[in-house]
Amino acid sequence: MSNGEDIITGWFARQRNLPACDFPIGIGDDMAEIRLADSRKGCCAGVSVLITTDMLLDGVHFDLKTATLEQVGYKAMAASLSDCAAMATIPVAAVVSVGLPISFGQAQLKELHSGIIAACDKFNCPLIGGDITKWADASKFAINVAMLSRPAGNPPVRRNGAKVGDAICVTGSLGGALLGKHLNFVPRVKEALKITSLVKLNSMMDISDGLTSDLNRICSQSRVGAIIDANSIPISPDVKTTPDPFFAALNDGEDFELLFTLAEDNCGRLLKQWNDSVPITRIGTVTDTGKMQIKMPDGKITDLKPSGYDHLK
Amino acid sequence: MSNGEDIITGWFARQRNLPACDFPIGIGDDMAEIRLADSRKGCCAGVSVLITTDMLLDGVHFDLKTATLEQVGYKAMAASLSDCAAMATIPVAAVVSVGLPISFGQAQLKELHSGIIAACDKFNCPLIGGDITKWADASKFAINVAMLSRPAGNPPVRRNGAKVGDAICVTGSLGGALLGKHLNFVPRVKEALKITSLVKLNSMMDISDGLTSDLNRICSQSRVGAIIDANSIPISPDVKTTPDPFFAALNDGEDFELLFTLAEDNCGRLLKQWNDSVPITRIGTVTDTGKMQIKMPDGKITDLKPSGYDHLK
Repeated sequence: MSNGEDIITGWFARQRNLPACDFPIGIGDDMAEIRLADSRKGCCAGVSVLITTDMLLDGVHFDLKTATLEQVGYKAMAASLSDCAAMATIPVAAVVSVGLPISFGQAQLKELHSGIIAACDKFNCPLIGGDITKWADASKFAINVAMLSRPAGNPPVRRNGAKVGDAICVTGSLGGALLGKHLNFVPRVKEALKITSLVKLNSMMDISDGLTSDLNRICSQSRVGAIIDANSIPISPDVKTTPDPFFAALNDGEDFELLFTLAEDNCGRLLKQWNDSVPITRIGTVTDTGKMQIKMPDGKITDLKPSGYDHLK
Repeated sequence: MSNGEDIITGWFARQRNLPACDFPIGIGDDMAEIRLADSRKGCCAGVSVLITTDMLLDGVHFDLKTATLEQVGYKAMAASLSDCAAMATIPVAAVVSVGLPISFGQAQLKELHSGIIAACDKFNCPLIGGDITKWADASKFAINVAMLSRPAGNPPVRRNGAKVGDAICVTGSLGGALLGKHLNFVPRVKEALKITSLVKLNSMMDISDGLTSDLNRICSQSRVGAIIDANSIPISPDVKTTPDPFFAALNDGEDFELLFTLAEDNCGRLLKQWNDSVPITRIGTVTDTGKMQIKMPDGKITDLKPSGYDHLK
């Protein structure tokens, strides 16, 4: 689930009588967890399934003037797969709803479908249902993916478990996704499962709104601060020639890389063992300051504000 | 999941390598079923969960010029709850995505949320996650509900199990939903569970596109025909004063009543025992003609075509 406007999301979070036993993870994480009762064993002995939902809109998350429908179908699926990765869970199945422009016919749906299926096949996550409807009087296009996943041996990794002293790491490189990568990025499902098979993570999410915005979410949900080292941020080659590559890497959003924290010694072990083509970079440390800070290249430490891309601004 | 344009839905149904063991019910029913592997018992011994997704659009499924946001939130939830009822399953949890007009603020979200929560509370189906985003340049409004349910002792009731000789029944009365009922209908969750606790059903769905369209779906998926008796159709009081109440009852759509078939003797037992405030009416019989027919009040039998409301027309 994307982050959107956290304050407004709060309205949706005020739920009454949520039996914690059946819903161990609710609103505020990348996915919600449902523990299905096993009638043979009683309430808490059941099987867990996780769910995420994400709506992508033309003109916001993609632009049909430049993106193909195949790219849109792929991106919608990949964004949900990235949520599965963010919890270190295994994708199980997806259902897709579309609100189509009146002009759409089978040719357009076929193109959209091929993008969806490309992602399904790549991540072994079948499309098992859907809903197709058309606007009566508009050429708008909305696509919603709801995806289920299951835990991979270990419990799902949440946003709220970061501990003071943790190392802060990211996969891949950051910035410039809107130059093109946001349409064909590879969700880090495989990498998340590999990392959690090697070491215990204390917190994780995927970077959808930008490093500063999303690190701020981990900090606020974990009630900790963070300091990151400007020199260590892995800046995407895509932004190396733009006016402010460093700002882009901090704030562009839609990187869909993993942002996670883990104990210092686990970080050392992980980096030593990691031989994957997708790099892992340590970018900072979790602190008890209660705020985000950044150590600039000149050594000066300054406060860092969340200023990533917010879909509601 | 709504029915939409069945031919186009076919594009989405062409899935490769769906292991039937893990997905006993796929595209084409009111919900898809996922059997989650139980690691202790192997693939097929797991716990089942069902999922539906439905996108509702302003100007198609509701009109914000006349409907309140509270009504829209309620309707979006109730439509998915009706899918749970259509399979005779128990609602478990829902996630909601919204694509909002740029003008929306917290007041509008609060109103929408209160309608969603009213349905959640009434049917013990908590809202456990969501996604909020805004159109960049449009005043369109789309809402998507993805809902999970679980089997209620018996296997979920599908559309494809109708047998020649079955009695055809409906709950409640039909027609005129667009005059108002489509915004505040009560999904037949309780009734579906009560019916299936009393007798075995062979097929069921909810009436979203109109009796003729939806009966046609049961017939075509079950490879049977049907004959209904015009005199037996329970016509809603809402359409009694409209120009053609009978046509309205057959085709209006959005009744969200249950349409089901069951063995003749089971139908007799059910009607004898049924003492609920929501009536059950037998309207016809499943045949081997391969087509839908209707016996008119004058005794003449004529072919019946699916001409209910289709969101894609």
